[in-house]
Amino acid sequence: MTEHGLGVSISEIARGAGVHASSIQRRWGTRENVMLDALLTYSQEKLPIPDTGALRGDLVAFGRSIAGYLATPLGEAVAQTMAATDDDPALAAGRTRFWESRYDTARVIIDRAVDRDEVAADTDPELALELLVAPLHFRKLLTRQAVDDDFVERLVDALMRGLTS
Amino acid sequence: MTEHGLGVSISEIARGAGVHASSIQRRWGTRENVMLDALLTYSQEKLPIPDTGALRGDLVAFGRSIAGYLATPLGEAVAQTMAATDDDPALAAGRTRFWESRYDTARVIIDRAVDRDEVAADTDPELALELLVAPLHFRKLLTRQAVDDDFVERLVDALMRGLTS
Repeated sequence: MTEHGLGVSISEIARGAGVHASSIQRRWGTRENVMLDALLTYSQEKLPIPDTGALRGDLVAFGRSIAGYLATPLGEAVAQTMAATDDDPALAAGRTRFWESRYDTARVIIDRAVDRDEVAADTDPELALELLVAPLHFRKLLTRQAVDDDFVERLVDALMRGLTS
Repeated sequence: MTEHGLGVSISEIARGAGVHASSIQRRWGTRENVMLDALLTYSQEKLPIPDTGALRGDLVAFGRSIAGYLATPLGEAVAQTMAATDDDPALAAGRTRFWESRYDTARVIIDRAVDRDEVAADTDPELALELLVAPLHFRKLLTRQAVDDDFVERLVDALMRGLTS
């Protein structure tokens, strides 16, 4: 583990891929960019969008798979890296692309809930997903409290019901 | 700024306080512990608990003051430091103390809302506060989206109403 949580250099990445370091450098610039790009692809595969037929089931399944990912050394390192790094413009662009892609892929969970009349048609899909995803990362990175199935269920119930209903 | 986001050494802290570095070391162990302890005190002063007479007003005011704190160089450095550091036991204990104290102090916002019949008596105060605090930190550290007054209002409205009501 380096300062940024990922102990991989561009030359190690190049060696692993069997190419010249200069090819990596030309295409991505920094090792953080290589990583973010790889993560984008990886997380789309590892975090499939559930389709259980109901909003609660989808949110619980999605929350659990994010919690599971954050429990892996890679998931933890990625979250720490994104949280720690300063705003190198190339990295910032990669980060933005990463989250935009995540929200774009996952918003179907909320779109389907609208179609099923489970939530109001004007529900903001990004905000709704953020309410689920943020506490998982907050616990993992800041309070270090358990991010387990029980927490995911309590979280989803609180979000669906709302504080004042 | 060092690796951990705070460019202060124990000897600098000692110099600032006019004491020997060994006294600091004996009492706190590491500079991270000094920092967390100082933050505990500081954040209690800088993040007073609002009492507007209504839950929405309290949550918006509390959310805004956390957002304002996270926008300062200190607030940002503290969040990054807590997110980045590995689990040194002394630091982990300080971190736990920090968040427990924050939740203990702020739960009166939810307790008062229960007294006013704004939320159910079995509302979990810590979870309710976490739903507010987590997205502010998540945006600051991970997505780097705006943590402004507009977002705080949208967030509080979504939390109070719930996704399915």
